[in-house]
Amino acid sequence: MFVLVNLKAYPCDPIAVATAARDVAADAGVRIAVAPQAADLSRVAETGVETWAQHVSPIDHGSHTGSTRAAAVADAGAVGTLINHSERRLTLADIDGARAAAADNDLETVVCANDPAQAGAAAALGPDAVAVEPPALIGGDVSVASADPGIVRDAVDAVTDVDEAVELFCGAGVSTGADVAAAADLGASGVLLASGVAKADDPRAALEDLVSGI
Amino acid sequence: MFVLVNLKAYPCDPIAVATAARDVAADAGVRIAVAPQAADLSRVAETGVETWAQHVSPIDHGSHTGSTRAAAVADAGAVGTLINHSERRLTLADIDGARAAAADNDLETVVCANDPAQAGAAAALGPDAVAVEPPALIGGDVSVASADPGIVRDAVDAVTDVDEAVELFCGAGVSTGADVAAAADLGASGVLLASGVAKADDPRAALEDLVSGI
Amino acid sequence: MFVLVNLKAYPCDPIAVATAARDVAADAGVRIAVAPQAADLSRVAETGVETWAQHVSPIDHGSHTGSTRAAAVADAGAVGTLINHSERRLTLADIDGARAAAADNDLETVVCANDPAQAGAAAALGPDAVAVEPPALIGGDVSVASADPGIVRDAVDAVTDVDEAVELFCGAGVSTGADVAAAADLGASGVLLASGVAKADDPRAALEDLVSGI
Amino acid sequence: MFVLVNLKAYPCDPIAVATAARDVAADAGVRIAVAPQAADLSRVAETGVETWAQHVSPIDHGSHTGSTRAAAVADAGAVGTLINHSERRLTLADIDGARAAAADNDLETVVCANDPAQAGAAAALGPDAVAVEPPALIGGDVSVASADPGIVRDAVDAVTDVDEAVELFCGAGVSTGADVAAAADLGASGVLLASGVAKADDPRAALEDLVSGI
Repeated sequence: MFVLVNLKAYPCDPIAVATAARDVAADAGVRIAVAPQAADLSRVAETGVETWAQHVSPIDHGSHTGSTRAAAVADAGAVGTLINHSERRLTLADIDGARAAAADNDLETVVCANDPAQAGAAAALGPDAVAVEPPALIGGDVSVASADPGIVRDAVDAVTDVDEAVELFCGAGVSTGADVAAAADLGASGVLLASGVAKADDPRAALEDLVSGI
Repeated sequence: MFVLVNLKAYPCDPIAVATAARDVAADAGVRIAVAPQAADLSRVAETGVETWAQHVSPIDHGSHTGSTRAAAVADAGAVGTLINHSERRLTLADIDGARAAAADNDLETVVCANDPAQAGAAAALGPDAVAVEPPALIGGDVSVASADPGIVRDAVDAVTDVDEAVELFCGAGVSTGADVAAAADLGASGVLLASGVAKADDPRAALEDLVSGI
Repeated sequence: MFVLVNLKAYPCDPIAVATAARDVAADAGVRIAVAPQAADLSRVAETGVETWAQHVSPIDHGSHTGSTRAAAVADAGAVGTLINHSERRLTLADIDGARAAAADNDLETVVCANDPAQAGAAAALGPDAVAVEPPALIGGDVSVASADPGIVRDAVDAVTDVDEAVELFCGAGVSTGADVAAAADLGASGVLLASGVAKADDPRAALEDLVSGI
Repeated sequence: MFVLVNLKAYPCDPIAVATAARDVAADAGVRIAVAPQAADLSRVAETGVETWAQHVSPIDHGSHTGSTRAAAVADAGAVGTLINHSERRLTLADIDGARAAAADNDLETVVCANDPAQAGAAAALGPDAVAVEPPALIGGDVSVASADPGIVRDAVDAVTDVDEAVELFCGAGVSTGADVAAAADLGASGVLLASGVAKADDPRAALEDLVSGI
């Protein structure tokens, strides 16, 4: 299982979360990555934690202001990127463009989707993984794997039907080791989470609990 | 073959094009539809031509200003709608939402896509058809079916692999009967065109040429 | 006072509201307009009520799909348009482009803004009027003129400081004749409202109450 | 005069440009700042050059993915930010929100605008400066101050009429010392430029030429 912690725009200390994630990953032998704001990428990467971007722009280079170039993200130390998070929706063409820009810079790609049908659509674009995150559950206390296990199972099927090489992650409400174990049981090979770690009083303890189910 | 004429925001007389399309469709026994601006839908539908919307919003009803409700479009006489045209790109979630809103109001749906990969993704959402339109060829003089027949063939394959029930249309540069015939040979069951008819000095003659290849 | 009723995407009968507005306007000698979906414009205009668009695109004509051309809106019978409603926000450049496109087609323009500072900014673009509508109050039961009269007063000042020829309307929570009277007392020369009429069991009675304060 | 170099998403070495800008600023006693991609901010700031962001999001903190929080930008070493660049247009409400977020984090703000009317509108929101950049001239060889000096003069007037405390910068086509001198003569207190330095074979020489006119 891959545990990807999205720091969003939370007022947390990105270095503290990154350090905790690096240590828990090493201690537990579990793959954990942290996705900070673009401006924090290099500081987070310097901790040695696996570092991801929250978004990259569907561009190569040129006259684009305020964009997030995949090459700049990679230079800052990121090895992967979220694309089309529910808080940063892209057009279909731009999802594909961002995926291509990321792949050109050797970034791993996870395209987010609301439900199994959209997960299947995202898989047709050939990312490394698709993450299904029902918007109604994001930020809540109940994990998608508990609240609606059928969504995770259907998303695994939808993605596999389109392209067997694409992995399925799940997110929304994931906060405990039991949530991670439930996701794995349903066929997910990764989880996306945010507030459960980023807003925890003790991010290290939260991460230890999360990986205890793996 | 289905011939769908998008009037875009061209300064043409929508009633004149609609009347010509209605007459040519009847004379030639070919299915032809016209897609005007939302504000022109009812006037165009009154001519008796098959009428389509250029876009519908991914909403049911509620507090949305300046949107295009599928129900209002259907009330005005439309029987189908384009979704995600390259000049009106939507997020993946909104493509699915617009498709659902259209289907709930018995509108036929054609989702536009740039290339075969995106056509496959669009097919996973279950529209009635997907239209592949390479942006570089839109508005040009060369039909996609002549300039790059591989794109049409690959798009047919990509769509069929995902869902055999979804038809494949093609567009971009279609302006003659030979273009329509070439598209049909490559496996397309419809064509999208715009300037070739809407900006023609004689829309009726342009349409007669187009359907001569069917 | 000018009373502008935005029908949004409510599932109301636009013709019934339009007819009621036409009759109450004539009976009470008050200017009342109705702004339906673009697809409903021509049917609404045929009732004889003053008809407005909810939005126009910042374009003249050309290759634009799913847009709302000011000329098409005027052809359908509209005499004015909202621009930049909080449910249809535009960039600064597009607000100016939409205003220019509307003016080129003799449509009256009302640019919406959230607060006095943004109202002043909108006034600098030279529309006929600016409407201040605090987002937190839109769709609620309390009128901006009662909940926060300072906002209306400050918006009048901000607009007048920038351009004395620009009128100030107010909206958000307006639903009674007392609300309209309060708005007039604060210096507004028009009100925007939506649900108070469009979702009323008896739109005619709601409108009669509204204009009773004028 | 303030010289602000926007690196956009050009494939330049941001550290080389930053170092050259730092040195030329010190040698010539002119204020020069560099605005890199968000992911490059901390590396650029470490050179000691005055560092600006290309964009900040109109948010404080919370559940926002792929945004650019003003606080993160400030933590990375930025002391100012562009807002509403023509390649990153924002709604009127978001321009104001971004300006407020920047100000809350002690970032200087420059809001970009296309023409004098929009410059006046931007000034009404109270940024530190407004930059007028006619889109048709951006990236070209002719400076706005030469091609159309009336635009700069009218923008100075429009901004001053609305708020005397707001400065006026100009951009688009600025690449020589003569351009900078012409801008100053017209009343601008700063210039925005990009390709003239970022794509120069010798950024240091380009900057030395630029400041020679001050």
